[in-house]
Amino acid sequence: MTRLTLAIDVMGGDFGPCVTVPASLQALESNPHLHLLLVGDPDIITSSLATADSVLRARLQIIAAESVIASDARPSQAIRTSRGTSMRIALEQVKEGRAQACISAGNTGALMGLAKLLLKPLDGIDRPALMTVLPHQQHGKTVVLDLGANVDSDSAMLVQFAVMGAVVAEEVLAISQPRVALINIGQEESKGLTSIRDAAAILRASPEINFIGYLEGNDLLTGKTDVLVYDGFVGNVTLKTMEGVVRMFLSLLKSQGEGKKRAWWLRLLGRLLQKRLAKKFGHLNPDQYNGACLLGLRGTVIKSHGAANQRAFTVAIQQAEQAVQRQIPERIAARLQAVLPKSD
Amino acid sequence: MTRLTLAIDVMGGDFGPCVTVPASLQALESNPHLHLLLVGDPDIITSSLATADSVLRARLQIIAAESVIASDARPSQAIRTSRGTSMRIALEQVKEGRAQACISAGNTGALMGLAKLLLKPLDGIDRPALMTVLPHQQHGKTVVLDLGANVDSDSAMLVQFAVMGAVVAEEVLAISQPRVALINIGQEESKGLTSIRDAAAILRASPEINFIGYLEGNDLLTGKTDVLVYDGFVGNVTLKTMEGVVRMFLSLLKSQGEGKKRAWWLRLLGRLLQKRLAKKFGHLNPDQYNGACLLGLRGTVIKSHGAANQRAFTVAIQQAEQAVQRQIPERIAARLQAVLPKSD
Repeated sequence: MTRLTLAIDVMGGDFGPCVTVPASLQALESNPHLHLLLVGDPDIITSSLATADSVLRARLQIIAAESVIASDARPSQAIRTSRGTSMRIALEQVKEGRAQACISAGNTGALMGLAKLLLKPLDGIDRPALMTVLPHQQHGKTVVLDLGANVDSDSAMLVQFAVMGAVVAEEVLAISQPRVALINIGQEESKGLTSIRDAAAILRASPEINFIGYLEGNDLLTGKTDVLVYDGFVGNVTLKTMEGVVRMFLSLLKSQGEGKKRAWWLRLLGRLLQKRLAKKFGHLNPDQYNGACLLGLRGTVIKSHGAANQRAFTVAIQQAEQAVQRQIPERIAARLQAVLPKSD
Repeated sequence: MTRLTLAIDVMGGDFGPCVTVPASLQALESNPHLHLLLVGDPDIITSSLATADSVLRARLQIIAAESVIASDARPSQAIRTSRGTSMRIALEQVKEGRAQACISAGNTGALMGLAKLLLKPLDGIDRPALMTVLPHQQHGKTVVLDLGANVDSDSAMLVQFAVMGAVVAEEVLAISQPRVALINIGQEESKGLTSIRDAAAILRASPEINFIGYLEGNDLLTGKTDVLVYDGFVGNVTLKTMEGVVRMFLSLLKSQGEGKKRAWWLRLLGRLLQKRLAKKFGHLNPDQYNGACLLGLRGTVIKSHGAANQRAFTVAIQQAEQAVQRQIPERIAARLQAVLPKSD
């Protein structure tokens, strides 16, 4: 494997360097080919690295950024005043070819806007979309997008999301002729919003897309489709709903091994079984698939959960490594030419 | 308790009389004050009742309906040609005072439109909303609406949903000054769709509503709010997403006690623990809270899941019993006068 350099927006996210620096070291430890550019306040980064292994330290470079985009800033304003922020400088590393991808846990709207401004959308794409890959009940995976890069999506955008999702399913998950579905509130053609019905009509008429129609919310994890397309608002609420329910189940399971009043052997068995169950459900733990990929740009940008812990942020860095290795932007660009309508 | 009469659209739902008739008998068995009007094909209903206990049979009346609204019919067209259908005749029983509420598992859009047409919205309500009550992690309950009665909601509708939800929380769940939140894709004021931001501004300025701001999808079950307001599309997808995830967990738990290769005592213990867990999570089983209430009408209408099984449809009938006993439409009407802006 060749050298791989990623830029990290160290200051982004709810916990900033406390999470991003240890996660960066962990990622370096697990991939000897990885180099990282840590963008942020040099003093804070240096002190966070005080006890770091010097071998890992050698694959790190600190890039100074004097300010941070607040997580509650209005994206439009944050973008106007973004010069010198850790997020912008991290993205500039990708733009200028010094890094192959950028990872940030910062303000989603600002990241989306700045990435579009600096890295430019691919031909045929109006707006990038946030995508993740979820494990489903049939032991396969489903590509899910948009998870909130856009608040409002028209039919043309939904079609573009469908095409990008199909390319990821084909190129990354190696599914030939991946099934593509649109989320809706019923399976009948007449159901739902106009934008969704119009997108369905376009997809139905596209021989390059294996469009299977509408699916409802309860099919998110059933494996009935390889690609599930949401508008950004619904996708964001859906993914977070799923995460909330999964976290609740995992915490209920965890409490299962506890309870002081039970006999020691019952507690022991409880804990054994709890471990088995946690293992069985662990693949659904939101920390395991942190890092949504911003698709549709001429570069790779990974958005981590703002509240990601060290383990979850490490997973986001690893998502970036995979996206670069699999050349997702290049492959989407190549396929878009064939699938999307030509603009004259 | 006084006599209670409910009208059942026997023909609605994926399984029609096979589910609705046995569920009706079960509901009669558990409430000696209940009387039911079974609306549908008299031959099918009579044959489904062949082995029914004559004591229960005495509290049943069959009302003939010659046709059924298909679950995939376009609501607008279904409503135009609804004369003589089981759904319409069941609703007419409420309109004409022969029943105090109606339950249907049929076409949601048609039920919503017909109910609005026949029972009329309350003063101040533009469009009724589908509401359910979900158990949350703090051992309380959250009122959730709209679950899909409307596809597209403007800010005025969201405000009306918030008011109706608050009334239900106060009057039915006995929560004083219930907390009301709007679902959004971030907690900051600037986030999300214009309709949501506008609704938030109105609610923030309403002293009668204890508006606590935005919540995100992962807060559906955390108990941070007593009322959570969605537009119908997002609410429908959210509730179904939650159901899908919960069903997956319950089926994974169920498979936990199985496995032929394990020692008999391990299998036995596995099954014991599985039972404990199923009990612990059982309150989240979608069958347990089937039956969404159509709020904002001058009468009580309960929408059951189309795919409801006998147990779930029985729960929907019981929801109707409770809604009638708690006089939900009357209480909402009374409170709306105080809270909603006067139209001159």
